[in-house]
Amino acid sequence: MDAKQLRDLGQQLRVDAVHAAAAAGSGHPTSSMSAADLMAVLLAGHLRYDFTMPGHPGNDRLIFSKGHAAPLLYAMYRAAGVIHDTELLSFRTLGSRLEGHPTPRLPWVEVATGSLGLGLGVGAGLALAAARLENAPVRAWVLCGDSELAEGSMWEAFEYAGYERLDNLTAIIDVNRLGQRGETRHGWDTAAYARRIGAFGWHTIEIDGHDVDAIDDAFTAAESTQGRPTAIIARTMKGRGVAAVQDTEGAHGKPVPDADEAIAELGGIRSVQVPVRPPHDVAGRRAPVSPNGGPVSLPAYERGQQVATRAAFGEALSVLGGARPGLVVLDGEVSDSTRTDDFARQHPDRFFECYIAEQQMVATALGLQARGWVPFAATFAAFWTRAHDFIRMAAISRANLKLVGSHAGVSIGQDGPSQMGLEDLALFRAIHGSVVLYPCDANQTAALLAELTAHHGIGYLRTTRGGTPVIYPPGERFPIGGSKVLRASDADQVTIIAAGVTVHQALAAADRLAADGIPARVIDLYSVKPVDTQALRAAAEATGAFVTAEDHWAEGGLGDAVMAAFANGHQPPRMAKLAVHAMPGSATPEEQLHAAGIDAKAIEAAARALAGQRVAP
Amino acid sequence: MDAKQLRDLGQQLRVDAVHAAAAAGSGHPTSSMSAADLMAVLLAGHLRYDFTMPGHPGNDRLIFSKGHAAPLLYAMYRAAGVIHDTELLSFRTLGSRLEGHPTPRLPWVEVATGSLGLGLGVGAGLALAAARLENAPVRAWVLCGDSELAEGSMWEAFEYAGYERLDNLTAIIDVNRLGQRGETRHGWDTAAYARRIGAFGWHTIEIDGHDVDAIDDAFTAAESTQGRPTAIIARTMKGRGVAAVQDTEGAHGKPVPDADEAIAELGGIRSVQVPVRPPHDVAGRRAPVSPNGGPVSLPAYERGQQVATRAAFGEALSVLGGARPGLVVLDGEVSDSTRTDDFARQHPDRFFECYIAEQQMVATALGLQARGWVPFAATFAAFWTRAHDFIRMAAISRANLKLVGSHAGVSIGQDGPSQMGLEDLALFRAIHGSVVLYPCDANQTAALLAELTAHHGIGYLRTTRGGTPVIYPPGERFPIGGSKVLRASDADQVTIIAAGVTVHQALAAADRLAADGIPARVIDLYSVKPVDTQALRAAAEATGAFVTAEDHWAEGGLGDAVMAAFANGHQPPRMAKLAVHAMPGSATPEEQLHAAGIDAKAIEAAARALAGQRVAP
Repeated sequence: MDAKQLRDLGQQLRVDAVHAAAAAGSGHPTSSMSAADLMAVLLAGHLRYDFTMPGHPGNDRLIFSKGHAAPLLYAMYRAAGVIHDTELLSFRTLGSRLEGHPTPRLPWVEVATGSLGLGLGVGAGLALAAARLENAPVRAWVLCGDSELAEGSMWEAFEYAGYERLDNLTAIIDVNRLGQRGETRHGWDTAAYARRIGAFGWHTIEIDGHDVDAIDDAFTAAESTQGRPTAIIARTMKGRGVAAVQDTEGAHGKPVPDADEAIAELGGIRSVQVPVRPPHDVAGRRAPVSPNGGPVSLPAYERGQQVATRAAFGEALSVLGGARPGLVVLDGEVSDSTRTDDFARQHPDRFFECYIAEQQMVATALGLQARGWVPFAATFAAFWTRAHDFIRMAAISRANLKLVGSHAGVSIGQDGPSQMGLEDLALFRAIHGSVVLYPCDANQTAALLAELTAHHGIGYLRTTRGGTPVIYPPGERFPIGGSKVLRASDADQVTIIAAGVTVHQALAAADRLAADGIPARVIDLYSVKPVDTQALRAAAEATGAFVTAEDHWAEGGLGDAVMAAFANGHQPPRMAKLAVHAMPGSATPEEQLHAAGIDAKAIEAAARALAGQRVAP
Repeated sequence: MDAKQLRDLGQQLRVDAVHAAAAAGSGHPTSSMSAADLMAVLLAGHLRYDFTMPGHPGNDRLIFSKGHAAPLLYAMYRAAGVIHDTELLSFRTLGSRLEGHPTPRLPWVEVATGSLGLGLGVGAGLALAAARLENAPVRAWVLCGDSELAEGSMWEAFEYAGYERLDNLTAIIDVNRLGQRGETRHGWDTAAYARRIGAFGWHTIEIDGHDVDAIDDAFTAAESTQGRPTAIIARTMKGRGVAAVQDTEGAHGKPVPDADEAIAELGGIRSVQVPVRPPHDVAGRRAPVSPNGGPVSLPAYERGQQVATRAAFGEALSVLGGARPGLVVLDGEVSDSTRTDDFARQHPDRFFECYIAEQQMVATALGLQARGWVPFAATFAAFWTRAHDFIRMAAISRANLKLVGSHAGVSIGQDGPSQMGLEDLALFRAIHGSVVLYPCDANQTAALLAELTAHHGIGYLRTTRGGTPVIYPPGERFPIGGSKVLRASDADQVTIIAAGVTVHQALAAADRLAADGIPARVIDLYSVKPVDTQALRAAAEATGAFVTAEDHWAEGGLGDAVMAAFANGHQPPRMAKLAVHAMPGSATPEEQLHAAGIDAKAIEAAARALAGQRVAP
């Protein structure tokens, strides 16, 4: 396309954005209009993509980190001929694939965006997959806003991609000067952005984002830059092309005042269809391999051994990595603690050190999984809180993402509360569609890791710092959604439900109770989500009383998960929820469990109180 | 002190760090040893602090962003004469104030650290309080690690402080090259850090961090630099001074192998006491004023009016701001949505725009509250997930922090799931000691805001985007921990429990049920934490069956909070928990409530099913 045609295409994209938002009665046309020329030139001259085959491995990747510019993205799809007028005008209505912010309900969307600061990091992950794993000459193009440059996650991404020399990544920064409620920090000072981004090892190019020739040159320069990613910092105008909203405060996130007039001002409705460049030749590509391979000989531990579940995780991960070439591992500079270091030594080509940048670690993993790799990412359980928003967004992406949190709970001991994951179960339970697993011994850890590898979706595995005795034989099965009844009799007066470290405390309590003539059922609820509703209801019917014990705050964890099994009209049992209530300090692991009231002694006392209250039916 | 004395003091700090960690059997002596000379020069020559009066307004602020160097901090306290040998050697033991990472259990600690990437932002908040609010000539000194420069939150802080020209803030970066499991990204390339930090508008100084004269010069330069903060980027050696661990991998986070030998190598135990410079003269200082002032005339709304709770929040906040000069407000570039914009107009000197950087927003607030100001910070409910770790850490700091999340739930409508806060109740319930409030109408919002202002601790207020009818009269009281029974009779067959938008759905359902001869109790559980255990237990006894309805995922929110009222052995009622189960897309607010199964129709059906199951006692 020549310059005039490109300018026309830009106007078409603007018209369609205005049109879609007007039909919806909401949306972000002005944030779309600023980037329309940038995207017109990308679509018509640089993006290599077969829109009829979104899974083509030679396709470039396109991410709208400024996800609120969704109308522009959908206008691009219309220009590429894969959505039509009727669908465009279904924007933001019930059932439409064209949501307010892009999600992978559309086959061309790699990951959901809309929470600013996410997309560039995912672009880095996609670029990494292409460059390091797949040997595919594809590029990742990421449209960023200027407002989102305030998010620290963007700078994690700049540092990550610069350090990894991802020259197949291009950030296109739409500097339209205006945020939601007024001017951004740096307004049109594109040099301020260039200084910062350049300092992180990027090639930076400042342009007028409405000059199609300059845009074309910049994209060409990005394509030929070697050894570092490129950021194109484009000065633009929000609402460009419509006088009523152009470069105007108060015009964010709403339809333009008079859509018909605006469309006329933009030259009316057009229907140019763009011949998009074909995908790259990927003959030499290495494809990710399904995680569901043949049988794996997991590490086996003898009963009675003291083994930390984090150690068993590390050993099993390394073995699984040998049998599953699609498995990749990321760590946040704590691999000697999480124990991903063995995998790193055995499979260095599939291990990615993300340093202490948990958001970027999740973003990288999101990029890798979007290409079919199966990522496991690990850090301390406490530090997943850093990436909470990215994990939330991963659920909207329907991502296949496995996260592992070590050093969970007060049982870590002396390091104190800043290092204790005491809210991780609450965090991960409230992630849509998640699986939350919490093993208590080494064999169970290995088995659950294998289950998690084969499961598609967001999974969380919680591991423990200190050693715990092996209680299960090697080879025992632990399906997701299951539980294990460790003590049971027909005379049980109370059920003790535990997971992880508290399983061992529960067993000790049950033994003392039994010695005292109070038979207690013990359930190892290793699958905190989904929860084994059937086993819990059976135990409630049999015993009428539950004690739950968890190394976690009282809110949102195991106890709440147990109660949720009775949340659809079933009669719940009486229940004592033992959990961490007071802010811990430093102390030994044993002192911590005791102080928190989740050790065998506390469980025994709670069970005894409930059993004593039992009335004959 | 002369150079030799300073070097001696550095050695004393090293010895004490080695000694404390050896006594504890754990801890981070090597990370303390790298920064010992830096802190010796600071303590002896630059820090202005009366350790006998930690609350003195003329004291400088000292933050260990690398909180794991706690042994060094405690060694400084010993050198300042405020802790003694016995307490130093209680490091990391049960009951000791000297926790594994610093917390405000020690009166000289402003905020808890230990989660890397937090301290610099808090330092910026402290510097901001001094410069903009208090007119106090004090400085904030922040000791940072090099590993933590990978955290995006650090770059939010660099951007924030650079943009705000906080020349009373100094970052002292201990570039000891080694992270936990090996070398950092940039090793000893201090120029790489200087380029990046300088690009964010800071004055940067690269020095040898073991040259006491160079350190002294750098601190002097920082003190005299105007208009921009200073970063002193100090090349150091981890484990400096002990050959067995100096600049050695694998020596992180553990005592040195032979403490006696190491102490001898460092010159033996010393007991130099440092004469610390006195506090600054703060005669012209403006002190924060207690939030508990006289009566406030809150905005009043007439029953039946449609008002968004976010709008009522904004109006009440502005009014409260007039009556409470200690109240300060922060927003994440969405003040026109959260409605803090009215406060910003009325009280511009106490409003702080934080742009889209939620972690820095919380960090700034943490710094402000540490100085006695009462900060309210607001963004969309969904985006608090960005700051989850900082909020978690705020609880360890026993902070007085009020956060407001607007646009909660599916009821926002068309924008789609990326903008819906559907996990915020789970997040905030699992914050230690938090208060979680969720008003359903405008008068209740204003009253709860006043309650929250007077409450000391971490509080969360959840507001709604769309209008809801005013159902409470102006002036009604809503104590924290309370609830309101909106419908009740002696014949109630079921209790419907709701909060926020679902209260109105619950009332509609109850009216339909009543018309059908099924009296239902309705409870407005506006205080999601603490929960009104007494009212819930009374309702359970009276009706035996609960329907809970919440605009939130099923995990960790209102339903779980209700069940928790029965978690200490009381017989819980049968319960149907209505919550969001499927991933929403775009749709109108009404369609969203219906699709999620939390509208009046769904509540009515669930209540009918439970009431129908009711058996005579």
